[in-house]
Amino acid sequence: MPAPLHVVFIGGAEGQWRVEQIRSVAGQSLPNVPKLKVIEGIAPPGDAGTWKLCGVTSNMRYTFRDEANLLSAQQEGLGRPQATMAALIPIRKSAAWWDLAQDERRKIFEEQSRHIAVGLEYLPGVARRLHHCRELAEPFDFLTWFEYPREEAKRFEELVTRRRATPE
Amino acid sequence: MPAPLHVVFIGGAEGQWRVEQIRSVAGQSLPNVPKLKVIEGIAPPGDAGTWKLCGVTSNMRYTFRDEANLLSAQQEGLGRPQATMAALIPIRKSAAWWDLAQDERRKIFEEQSRHIAVGLEYLPGVARRLHHCRELAEPFDFLTWFEYPREEAKRFEELVTRRRATPE
Repeated sequence: MPAPLHVVFIGGAEGQWRVEQIRSVAGQSLPNVPKLKVIEGIAPPGDAGTWKLCGVTSNMRYTFRDEANLLSAQQEGLGRPQATMAALIPIRKSAAWWDLAQDERRKIFEEQSRHIAVGLEYLPGVARRLHHCRELAEPFDFLTWFEYPREEAKRFEELVTRRRATPE
Repeated sequence: MPAPLHVVFIGGAEGQWRVEQIRSVAGQSLPNVPKLKVIEGIAPPGDAGTWKLCGVTSNMRYTFRDEANLLSAQQEGLGRPQATMAALIPIRKSAAWWDLAQDERRKIFEEQSRHIAVGLEYLPGVARRLHHCRELAEPFDFLTWFEYPREEAKRFEELVTRRRATPE
């Protein structure tokens, strides 16, 4: 695990990613923007764009050792030249979720929802990085970021559809 | 669990706590100061004191439901009038700790080190609040804060001595 990495996502007129669409699944949508800028490091002051979301990578919260080994054997990193598509999915969990004890959250996360097992089926095509932001006084709890080749786009949509059908 | 609460600890000339001593157990010591100011909320700019440490409360990371129920039945909150003593213990864990998977950290934390079980023995005398700061680009991983009546001071020292003897 690398040390925590702060990452800033700025929606606006500039950025290395062209936004194809912004879609709300639950809750309010983010304002539409033509570009997305992704900056690794603490948010620079003044570059606010139309909206700015900050997150930070962290240690594993639910993954057991055998699962971590499977993941690291199969997953690929961000920045692959063939991964020309990306998805940013900001998530806020319910207060009831955060009230649960660690064993209760793990049970829902994996034993019931098979979060890790399902994600493994989409490796190495879909690369991902999870950013935490609940403790950063941000509007979301997580910013999930995915990168994949265009030919994996249908598989990626299948992955998120399967995830959304789980109790988690 | 309340929503994450940001807390700032400022060592300097002012504050509601008079500093009796600052002691290093491992690593460098913090500079000596006469007072400690504890502010609940995002760090105000400009009030830096001699040193300033920021943390944020969060959800349970290792505690199981049965343990959480025991804790909440026995623990008391901060701010008790009889709790005139306090201790701030900033902690940094090793890189090896953060590399462990969730089940490996839990095993060291409780099954081997009995962190929760030992802490329970000192309730309700010693009240505590844990602040996370690894993801806040701070020098420490945790700021642990304890409040207790003067007659519990010996028991408190016993608690930290026992904790320091564990693998965790």
